[in-house]
Amino acid sequence: MTGSSLAIDIRKVNGENQLETEDSVAVEEPLEIQVIAAAPEAAAAKSISITMRTPGDDTELALGFLFTEGVIGSIDQVASVHHTGPVDAGSGLQNTIRVEVRPEVPIDMDRLQRHFYTTSSCGVCGKASLDALKFAGAKSLTQIETAFRRDTIVAMPDKLRESQHLFSQTGGLHAAAAFDPRGEIVALKEDVGRHNAVDKIVGCLLTGKKLPASGLGLLVSGRASFELVQKALSAGIPLLAAVGAPSSLAVQTAREFGMTLIGFLRNGKFNIYSGNERIQ
Amino acid sequence: MTGSSLAIDIRKVNGENQLETEDSVAVEEPLEIQVIAAAPEAAAAKSISITMRTPGDDTELALGFLFTEGVIGSIDQVASVHHTGPVDAGSGLQNTIRVEVRPEVPIDMDRLQRHFYTTSSCGVCGKASLDALKFAGAKSLTQIETAFRRDTIVAMPDKLRESQHLFSQTGGLHAAAAFDPRGEIVALKEDVGRHNAVDKIVGCLLTGKKLPASGLGLLVSGRASFELVQKALSAGIPLLAAVGAPSSLAVQTAREFGMTLIGFLRNGKFNIYSGNERIQ
Repeated sequence: MTGSSLAIDIRKVNGENQLETEDSVAVEEPLEIQVIAAAPEAAAAKSISITMRTPGDDTELALGFLFTEGVIGSIDQVASVHHTGPVDAGSGLQNTIRVEVRPEVPIDMDRLQRHFYTTSSCGVCGKASLDALKFAGAKSLTQIETAFRRDTIVAMPDKLRESQHLFSQTGGLHAAAAFDPRGEIVALKEDVGRHNAVDKIVGCLLTGKKLPASGLGLLVSGRASFELVQKALSAGIPLLAAVGAPSSLAVQTAREFGMTLIGFLRNGKFNIYSGNERIQ
Repeated sequence: MTGSSLAIDIRKVNGENQLETEDSVAVEEPLEIQVIAAAPEAAAAKSISITMRTPGDDTELALGFLFTEGVIGSIDQVASVHHTGPVDAGSGLQNTIRVEVRPEVPIDMDRLQRHFYTTSSCGVCGKASLDALKFAGAKSLTQIETAFRRDTIVAMPDKLRESQHLFSQTGGLHAAAAFDPRGEIVALKEDVGRHNAVDKIVGCLLTGKKLPASGLGLLVSGRASFELVQKALSAGIPLLAAVGAPSSLAVQTAREFGMTLIGFLRNGKFNIYSGNERIQ
């Protein structure tokens, strides 16, 4: 996890007392995601997105982002992934990652640019957000019968916290974890951006050929927004559990697509906003 | 605040007990921000951004967004702001807002589109984020002598919570507040998106001709990312205090531009990451 946290000098203030000390902060650095066709006559690499991320899982982040945005549909479409560009003198990081897709994968760059122009900050294509998801090929999860026990669900936040590498150091990272019905965490990722943590999970499952992940749940340390529901949906995950609150559009989307949505999962309690039938 | 929260049926799970009840969730709906020149020969309105927001302060959000992104430089450049487009049948909302700028305001739509293409999700223009801010005209705050007492700072989170309209109902909203050195809140805004809450504050200050706000501090309920520091910087606010953690790039940016940055402001304590000299 080189480069994920940074030690800096700070001043701690507690009542009359002030203490000069060293503390760790979560690293936030831009990552440019480029896509290029793996063909001799390929056009130049195309910059698809620049996102602020915590370094450490750039490959998973890039692949998960491209998958949840619908640019790639499987790992077989990817020829290679590698960092490129200058090495940042301060951090030692390369902040550009290039994904080569196989020449037979159709990528309409014009369509892409318009798509991202309207979705990069929020994950929606215009006002008809749900219709846009259907148009983009999102599939209903209604038929997925994976179920989770109540006591498994309430145990997950502690398991997440125990497994988190960085949170205890910096307090500044969102976490996301994929878990199975026995409560085993199969993937855990952290990032300053909540959407990035989920993209890293999806990229990890994609790389392991575990998508659609119809047998898993997804736990997030923060709130559940439309964008996170959309990302879980694209990965075929039938249950999303958030430590924080869901938004109205997150609830509407979960209900529309048959996803189980849990919020306020803390202190042994939780609320079910959609999909009661998967909780035993 | 019509449309800011929505009552829905949920199931509360607490141990063996389950309760069917009604709960409130924060509304998340897309807002399209359009810009058009207020001139007879003007080109068609241009869609600048679609962001997921909590309805209620769309004018402030749109103006604050355009200001912090450098599209407009003062309220005098704005001819009018109005909602447009179809009324959503479910919510009764219009989700498009159109900002007419005076014909003498130069807006290079080509430049804009490229600018937003790389910044809409993260607030940066490529890897050299700090250089990009300087290039965009961000001014150092070093000369601003506004100071805040320690006990004023530690009292702000409780004041924020007391003043919040929606948080107690939904638990799902970020809040941002501008406050003066006496600890008086001069503007308070909420949103499902942390950047939106700050844009609404900046839009409110812009409308009131209070920018640059060199005599105010800004309090945010969540974490301090690069993007929030950048927005406070564009508004000329010399102190940013976050209830949560700052990121590395937030600290670096605050130090570079002479902003006081406070994190982990809770339980009477806080950390100073930059600009000690403004805390008395």
